[in-house]
Amino acid sequence: MFVKQATVSAPVNIACIKYWGKRNESLILPTNPSLSVTLSQDHLCSTTTSRTCAEYEENLLWLNGKEVKIDNDKRLNTCLQAMRKQRERYEAKYPNEPKISKWKVHICSENNFPTAAGLASSASGFAALAYSLAHLYDLPLSDPADISDLSLNARQGSGSACRSLFGGFVEWQMGRDDLLGSDSRAVQVADHTFWPEIHALICIVSDDKKGTSSTAGMQRTVETSALFQYRIQHVEEQLVDIKQAILKKDFDTFAKITMQDSNQFHAVALDTDPPIFYMNDVSRAIIGVVTEYNRVSIAAGGKRKAAYTFDAGPNAVIYAPGENMKEIIGMIIQYFPQPEPFKDPFLNEVIEGTLVPGFNSAVAKRHEVGAVKGLIHTCVGDGPRVLGDEHALFDANGKPKQKSN
Amino acid sequence: MFVKQATVSAPVNIACIKYWGKRNESLILPTNPSLSVTLSQDHLCSTTTSRTCAEYEENLLWLNGKEVKIDNDKRLNTCLQAMRKQRERYEAKYPNEPKISKWKVHICSENNFPTAAGLASSASGFAALAYSLAHLYDLPLSDPADISDLSLNARQGSGSACRSLFGGFVEWQMGRDDLLGSDSRAVQVADHTFWPEIHALICIVSDDKKGTSSTAGMQRTVETSALFQYRIQHVEEQLVDIKQAILKKDFDTFAKITMQDSNQFHAVALDTDPPIFYMNDVSRAIIGVVTEYNRVSIAAGGKRKAAYTFDAGPNAVIYAPGENMKEIIGMIIQYFPQPEPFKDPFLNEVIEGTLVPGFNSAVAKRHEVGAVKGLIHTCVGDGPRVLGDEHALFDANGKPKQKSN
Repeated sequence: MFVKQATVSAPVNIACIKYWGKRNESLILPTNPSLSVTLSQDHLCSTTTSRTCAEYEENLLWLNGKEVKIDNDKRLNTCLQAMRKQRERYEAKYPNEPKISKWKVHICSENNFPTAAGLASSASGFAALAYSLAHLYDLPLSDPADISDLSLNARQGSGSACRSLFGGFVEWQMGRDDLLGSDSRAVQVADHTFWPEIHALICIVSDDKKGTSSTAGMQRTVETSALFQYRIQHVEEQLVDIKQAILKKDFDTFAKITMQDSNQFHAVALDTDPPIFYMNDVSRAIIGVVTEYNRVSIAAGGKRKAAYTFDAGPNAVIYAPGENMKEIIGMIIQYFPQPEPFKDPFLNEVIEGTLVPGFNSAVAKRHEVGAVKGLIHTCVGDGPRVLGDEHALFDANGKPKQKSN
Repeated sequence: MFVKQATVSAPVNIACIKYWGKRNESLILPTNPSLSVTLSQDHLCSTTTSRTCAEYEENLLWLNGKEVKIDNDKRLNTCLQAMRKQRERYEAKYPNEPKISKWKVHICSENNFPTAAGLASSASGFAALAYSLAHLYDLPLSDPADISDLSLNARQGSGSACRSLFGGFVEWQMGRDDLLGSDSRAVQVADHTFWPEIHALICIVSDDKKGTSSTAGMQRTVETSALFQYRIQHVEEQLVDIKQAILKKDFDTFAKITMQDSNQFHAVALDTDPPIFYMNDVSRAIIGVVTEYNRVSIAAGGKRKAAYTFDAGPNAVIYAPGENMKEIIGMIIQYFPQPEPFKDPFLNEVIEGTLVPGFNSAVAKRHEVGAVKGLIHTCVGDGPRVLGDEHALFDANGKPKQKSN
C-alpha cells in the first residue's frame, strides 16, 4: 500500500494592525490590510500531519483528538479542495508523479497550548493544514512568492491564518480582486532574524463570559458601526507607518501604533449595535499598568518600553524588547499574583513581583490570584517548519496517536 | 441693613447625545451639539440660595457645607461676573432699582443626592447658581429666549449645566460664534408635559477606580482620537433624528439612537491615547441585560422597550416608558441584588427580582449584592423652580444652615 504523509508545525501570530471585517465572506477578503508578529514555535504552535493513500474512503480530520468530517466543514473543505486543485495542476505538469490528488486524506492536528488558554488556534491550525498539504502534494515552497500563493488557500480557511505562513513581521495585503481574491495574500515585511529582540508576554486573563465569536462580531461591526467606516479608510496610513517603524527597529513608534490600533479595534467593536466587548476589568487594569510603565520611562526622558494589544478576547499580549521583559513580568506579577512561581524560559530564573522606581502603584489594584491565570513569555519566531516522520501524529498503521499534552 | 436673597432648585440632566470635546476651553464651546432629558427635581436636584448685601466683604460659596472663595475658582467667578454684568445693564436701564451689582454675594448650594452616588452634580449645581443669581438680580426669565440667554452664563460654569435650565428635552446648540460663544446655548425641544411617560432608572454602580475627569478626558480625546474626528462630523445627523423621534414620541428610535450615541462616546474615549474607560464589567453586564430585554421584545414582534446610557462613569441610566419600568427594575434586581428591598416611588410597592418570559438568563451572571449599590427611579421633569424663603439655605442672620441630608 502506497502511503504518503507530511508533518509540519506552524506558528501563532498576533496582529499589531488588526483584521476586523470582511468585504467578501465566502472568500474571506478583508476590509483592511493587517500586520502581525509571528511568535516562536518553541512556545506555541500547531502541529499537523496530512496523510493520503488510495484506500481512504473519507476526508477526516482529528483536531486535538476530536474527529471531524472535512466534507461537512465548509472552511476545511474549501482549503482542502484548493490544495487538491494545485496538486492536479502539478500532476498535469509532471505526468510521472503519483496521481494522489484524487485520494482522500486523513489529517491529524494538535496545538501545544491548552484550548482553555483562549488563544486563537485557527490561525496556526489552518496555516499548518495548508503547509502540510503543500508538502504532501510536493508543491513548490522554496520562494517567498510560493508561500504567498499558499497563503491564498490558508486565508480561505481562516483569514489570519495566511499571516502564520511567514515568520517575523507579516502583512496581509487586502488586495483588489473582489471576484477571486487572488491578490489578498500574506507577504513578509522582515523575517524573525531581522529584529529578534522583539519579545511577547501573553497574559491569560480569566473570563466568565463567553464572548461574541469574531466571525459573527466583525460582520455586525461592518453592518452597524459608523466609526468603522472611518477606520477602514485610514488604517492603511497606520500600516505604512508601522512597517517603516519595523524596518527602522523603532520600538517607540511600533508600540504607539500597536496600542492605538488595538484600542481602535475595540472602539469599533463597542460602536457596534449591539455593542461587543472583549476586554474586561482585568484587561483594562493591564492597559493601565503598561501605560504607567511607559509614562515613567517617558518622564525620565526615555521612550515607550512596552506595547499591549488585545485580540477578540480578554487576554493581553505585551510586546517589548527582550531587555525590558524582566521588568514587565515583575510588574504584571506585582498586580496579578500568579498561582505558581513564574520561571522565565529566557532567563531561566523565577521572577518576583516588583515595580520600577517612580511607578505610581495606584494605577491599578492588586488583583486576587488567578485574575491573570497564566503567563507565556515568547518572542518573534520563524515560519512553518517541516518535521521528520518521528513527529508524525499518525502511527505506522495510520491511526492518530494519543494526544500527549 | 438691606439684604436680598433668592432660592431656587435646578434639575439633573442626562444626555442622549453626549457632549464630549471643547473647541474653546475657556468659553466652553463644544465640538458637537448635544441633547438631554431633564430629570424630575422631586428625586434629584441642586438647591441654591444667593444672597447679597452691601456689607459682604468676599464672594463666598458653601457647597454641601464646604466653604469656597469664589474669586479663586475660575469657573464660579466667570459665571458670577457674567451675571453681575447683566445686572449692571439692568441697573443702567432702570435707574430706580437698587445698585446691587457691585455688592459681594454669599451663595449656599446643596444637592439632595449623596456625592458618593457618582452623579455629576456640576450641571444641576451651575444651573441653580445661574438661575438663583438671575432671580437675585431681577433679570427677565419669563420668555424661553431669556432662559436660553441665561444658559450662556451657566455654560461657562459647566458645559452641560446649560441644559439643566430647561425641563423636558433640551438641545445644546453648538453655535458658530467662536469669539464670544454668543450662540452656544440651550433650547427646549419639548417640555416635560409633552412626553411625561419617559422614566429613568439610575443604577449606581460600585467602582474602585477613580476615573479620568471629564474635563481632562475630553480634551485628550480631541487631541488624540482619530475616530473622534468622524464622530463630530456625523453626530448632528443623530441629533436631528432623535429630535424627530421625541416630537413623534417614537421610543424605539429614541432608544436606538440613545444607546448608539452612548456606545460611540465610550468608543472615542477608548480610541484616546492613552485610552479612557468609564464603563466597567458591571456596566457591561447592564448593557447585556438591556440588550436581551429588547431582543425578547423584538423577537415577539415588538419594539425596543428600554435604552441604556452611560456618562463619564460606570453608572447606567436606563430610559423607558413608565409602563415598562416594573419589568426593568425586576430584571435589574434579578442580576444585581439590592442590599435593601427596593420600594418603587411610583408604584409604592416593593419590586422583586424577576425576568420576562423568553429572557435568556445566561446573558449575564448574577452579581454579588452591592455591584449595583442603589437604584433611583425617576422621570422627565420640569426646569428650575423658584422656592419660597422657607427653603432658603441661609438663616435669618445669613449663616449657612446645617446641611440636612
